[in-house]
Amino acid sequence: MADKKKDRNRSVDPAVLEILARTEDSGFDTAYDRFLKMQPQCNFGEQGICCHVCIQGPCRITKKADKGICGATAYTIVARNLVRHELGGCTAHADHGLHATLLAKEVVEGRAPDYQIKDTDKLYAVAKRIGVSTEGKDDKAIFKELVDIALEDFSRLDGEDSKWLSKVIIPERIEKFKDCNILPSSIHRTIAGAMAQTHMGMDADPVNLVFKSLEVSLADYIGEHIATSLSDVLFGTPKPVVSEANMGVLDPDYINIAVHGHNPILSEMIVQAARDMKGEAEAAGAKGIKCMGICCTGNEILMRQGVPILTNFASQELAIMTGAVDAMVVDIQCIMPGIQAVSECFHTRIVTTSTSVKIPSAYHIEFDEERAMEKAREVIQIAIGAYKERNKDKVSIPQIKNKVVAGFSVEALLDLFAAINPERPIKVLTDAIESGELRGVCLLAGCNNLKRIHDQNHSTIAQELARNNVLLVATGCAAQTYAKFGMLNSDAVEKYAGDGLKAFLNRLNEANKDKLTEKLPLVFHMGSCVDNSRAYDLMTYMAEEMQVDTPKVPYAASAPEAMSEKAIAIGSWAVSLGMPVHVGVVPPIPGSPLVDGIARQIAQDVYGGYFIWETDPEESAKKILAALDERTWKLKVHKMAKEQYETEAISKTW
Amino acid sequence: MADKKKDRNRSVDPAVLEILARTEDSGFDTAYDRFLKMQPQCNFGEQGICCHVCIQGPCRITKKADKGICGATAYTIVARNLVRHELGGCTAHADHGLHATLLAKEVVEGRAPDYQIKDTDKLYAVAKRIGVSTEGKDDKAIFKELVDIALEDFSRLDGEDSKWLSKVIIPERIEKFKDCNILPSSIHRTIAGAMAQTHMGMDADPVNLVFKSLEVSLADYIGEHIATSLSDVLFGTPKPVVSEANMGVLDPDYINIAVHGHNPILSEMIVQAARDMKGEAEAAGAKGIKCMGICCTGNEILMRQGVPILTNFASQELAIMTGAVDAMVVDIQCIMPGIQAVSECFHTRIVTTSTSVKIPSAYHIEFDEERAMEKAREVIQIAIGAYKERNKDKVSIPQIKNKVVAGFSVEALLDLFAAINPERPIKVLTDAIESGELRGVCLLAGCNNLKRIHDQNHSTIAQELARNNVLLVATGCAAQTYAKFGMLNSDAVEKYAGDGLKAFLNRLNEANKDKLTEKLPLVFHMGSCVDNSRAYDLMTYMAEEMQVDTPKVPYAASAPEAMSEKAIAIGSWAVSLGMPVHVGVVPPIPGSPLVDGIARQIAQDVYGGYFIWETDPEESAKKILAALDERTWKLKVHKMAKEQYETEAISKTW
Repeated sequence: MADKKKDRNRSVDPAVLEILARTEDSGFDTAYDRFLKMQPQCNFGEQGICCHVCIQGPCRITKKADKGICGATAYTIVARNLVRHELGGCTAHADHGLHATLLAKEVVEGRAPDYQIKDTDKLYAVAKRIGVSTEGKDDKAIFKELVDIALEDFSRLDGEDSKWLSKVIIPERIEKFKDCNILPSSIHRTIAGAMAQTHMGMDADPVNLVFKSLEVSLADYIGEHIATSLSDVLFGTPKPVVSEANMGVLDPDYINIAVHGHNPILSEMIVQAARDMKGEAEAAGAKGIKCMGICCTGNEILMRQGVPILTNFASQELAIMTGAVDAMVVDIQCIMPGIQAVSECFHTRIVTTSTSVKIPSAYHIEFDEERAMEKAREVIQIAIGAYKERNKDKVSIPQIKNKVVAGFSVEALLDLFAAINPERPIKVLTDAIESGELRGVCLLAGCNNLKRIHDQNHSTIAQELARNNVLLVATGCAAQTYAKFGMLNSDAVEKYAGDGLKAFLNRLNEANKDKLTEKLPLVFHMGSCVDNSRAYDLMTYMAEEMQVDTPKVPYAASAPEAMSEKAIAIGSWAVSLGMPVHVGVVPPIPGSPLVDGIARQIAQDVYGGYFIWETDPEESAKKILAALDERTWKLKVHKMAKEQYETEAISKTW
Repeated sequence: MADKKKDRNRSVDPAVLEILARTEDSGFDTAYDRFLKMQPQCNFGEQGICCHVCIQGPCRITKKADKGICGATAYTIVARNLVRHELGGCTAHADHGLHATLLAKEVVEGRAPDYQIKDTDKLYAVAKRIGVSTEGKDDKAIFKELVDIALEDFSRLDGEDSKWLSKVIIPERIEKFKDCNILPSSIHRTIAGAMAQTHMGMDADPVNLVFKSLEVSLADYIGEHIATSLSDVLFGTPKPVVSEANMGVLDPDYINIAVHGHNPILSEMIVQAARDMKGEAEAAGAKGIKCMGICCTGNEILMRQGVPILTNFASQELAIMTGAVDAMVVDIQCIMPGIQAVSECFHTRIVTTSTSVKIPSAYHIEFDEERAMEKAREVIQIAIGAYKERNKDKVSIPQIKNKVVAGFSVEALLDLFAAINPERPIKVLTDAIESGELRGVCLLAGCNNLKRIHDQNHSTIAQELARNNVLLVATGCAAQTYAKFGMLNSDAVEKYAGDGLKAFLNRLNEANKDKLTEKLPLVFHMGSCVDNSRAYDLMTYMAEEMQVDTPKVPYAASAPEAMSEKAIAIGSWAVSLGMPVHVGVVPPIPGSPLVDGIARQIAQDVYGGYFIWETDPEESAKKILAALDERTWKLKVHKMAKEQYETEAISKTW
């Protein structure tokens, strides 16, 4: 049991620690145990110098064998593996974005009666941005044109530039990408071409491969941006909402349904059906049905419906170990196969819903947009059935939860700023940076990774940055850490914010006091992983306001506990789109000092963005601050020069 | 130097052994050396139980850690890795097929003046098969319609079935694929969806993943079939041609250009330019320019232009070590990065030509179809320049070469058969099987893999099968072994063929004596890897003639020295299309007995095809024969039952 005891140090989430402590001798096999059993992990794999692209291999680069059997050196192998990782992430987001687009098509064609265009303002805003005229057209006609552009951006073979991307990022970036030949034409062609480029005996040039990996990451961005934009039209653009988070949201008197995965198309229906089926729940002896979220599906329905957060990625199995989850309904991505084995020790039903996500022994209800509500009700019936079998003696819920203020889409943020500057809302933010009140903006994104202590990097880095007056926006499992830890409310502002950040937030609170029911939080929750597109939209608007290219904007990103290939793709587009990007888990790159150097240094020369690998949270915060300060300082120097010597404005391009 | 000496046992190609022996103390670093240095290879990787789809990993399945950190078991990991391998192969062929399609589009639109529709018969034949009417249309209009269908098959998002596939395989197979939900809609959508399905926390169900891997393999088949069909229209359908093969084809008096890779679009131009530039070569002091091929580009120009084969995959570096290769011009796939280091010890220029295949320090001439001949001439100028620097003291060419009779497209084979049965040519083959003269047909395909002794499996298996009266067709590097070893000529028939095979071939020789300049070979060379589609077309025609579903046709495939992911994709479609498929190198599957069992047994229940892993060449031949005999026996039993008891004909479906 020595290994088990070590679990206690594997998280800083008190609810997680309580469950681990209570169950440490019960023989449960969770990710925390499996991580320990997996040690030591393969160093070749961690360095990126294990090649498995042909079955003459695998080849590992060693002192004795400094090239693969085909002659591929470490830099080729690392770069090729990197492209494949980007593809894992890009295809995941493309799959998500295409699903949203095809649903939108069904809505337009009247084949998905349970869905509709919910947010006409957003529809008009997206249409304007993408260049679809709205005059004299009804909503469906406008939506149809958007859908057609999106579909073309997935499938185009004529080599023309991606239309969507060209409209949503600043022209300077587009020029840069054209110069480097990394502007995607279409998402699917980029995917197919990049995978082919990594086949045995294809590209051996690490620089060519790294450029391809960036093209893939930009295709990822398009997929994300389409997913966010169309989801907003279909389900509403988030605005401030109050909820709560952590295991304490489970209510023993209710039927508890954990909704887990990434896609709002199913979960929006589940939430609605749960509200409608209160009667059935009462008939089964419960007070009602409570939905709660894990991972980004959780974020989607928190942002739009105020549904509470149950937990985040690393602790998904532990939610089941409370004995109070009747069904865990999963859609796509980041669903540990381990949940099934744990669920079998309880009454909990695992319900898979996507044709491309099945788990042996789990329930499977194939979701169908044309009969969405009917399918959602089927799923809830399973939960009701399970509830009847719930063993009350096995229920033990950590009484830990925190208030959450979430729902900060870019639209919501601009709306807050508009209370101070209605003409140029974003100037409220850029002015605060220019004046030194804020040291910049940092997006805290990404996963959990048990190579780090669960949630520790997330929480420590955010606290350090807040103390140093950085405006924080968050997405994904990072945002869920802040939700669970009470950092998405105003108490945290008092506790952690530096004076500048406090002043900035208070000014916003004051200006918006008539419409806000709750004071603003320390960290602004912007949504799911695909909603990193929102975070970058914010950077784009700042760049436009400041009349500079994005690499000059004091805006950084951090994935403190990056785990998935999606995180690799997101990090890479953030770099090419001009951000310094901190990653708290070193990806499999250092096995090639050349590729590592490109990621950490040369990328900056070309794109302005670059990677920072740092696993220690305090050091990470320092490096992010330094990156922000460098940009503010440069802006100041340029401004001084401009005023003193009447030079031109800052060159817009990088 | 102990390691080096072992190289002598690493090939059965006498030319390779001569070069290795001559250079063993010269410090060259070739794949033969690197293979030895790489030993032992990682067992986790070889078994398929190393998971690297997220950066919480890599995870390795061991006794202590029987699941990955996320809870993925061996079967999930093996199946997920398998899907990614299929994707490597499928994207490679899709890339090739799309290139051919886009070139065809340029030809139709008049933007590629150096290319034209060369084979109108094939154009009409393909149009008929795909269902494009030809009446009242000129060739370009017909070609355009075909191109449009192909493009749609790459990019379709509407979920409709692939049009190309539906037309080129028998309806029973289409029904089977629809039943199992593995019929691809479009190549690119299948690729993107399958990659997404392997992302962390997506599919955990090995059966669902294996089905997806088969969908990917069918997308691979579409890509190959399009590549072959359109290449035939553009460059001509192969017909019997005489040439020669092995290192002895290098001529010290000529400028020697090795053309290496897979795509005829460049190499066809190189061959033509070389013929045109004899004057320049003579001016440089050479007698002329000799082109010769390596890998499938070599096969493409052997089949259509009679260009000799220099060597195959494993020994590509050794070709340079003759000191007589002035330029090695490469396009895509299976190009060892190691050629560059070896070339630097000689005057040889490595010239890359594709934007997705670069090698640091190599020459790069970006090929451009719109200025094809101009680009080809540029490449040849580089070779001429290099020739002037050739050091005659360093030239040492093994005087080993063999006569080759190649060029056996399905059309060419049917043409031979038609001399005996003009109405139903294919019946000549099926009758020979029914009568017991032939025990069946075997496709010998695929790569070299230094896990086996170079070319040994290829040659031994073919000899054993020939001795046992199996009609042999070959593609890829397998066919090049036979070319090098003199097995693509009629002497080999005398040497190796059993009485039945001899009788069959002699009957064909006799019937075609007026048009054949050479007697038929022991093995029929059908072309490059994408031309495995030809080999399967042959099976389709046999099934149609026999009025059975393909799994009932005595037709097997073998990849005796499989190496690349393309081989995995090809093997998988061959299985789902109904072939027993022997593989001489065990792919990374046995780490999951479940997935291994699906591949070797359950696949047969569902699709009729199945895999046979066997590394020993004699045993391999026995197992292939047993697989063929089982089918002939079943056909015989059914026929007897039909005659004796007046039962129905054999059920057409599997």
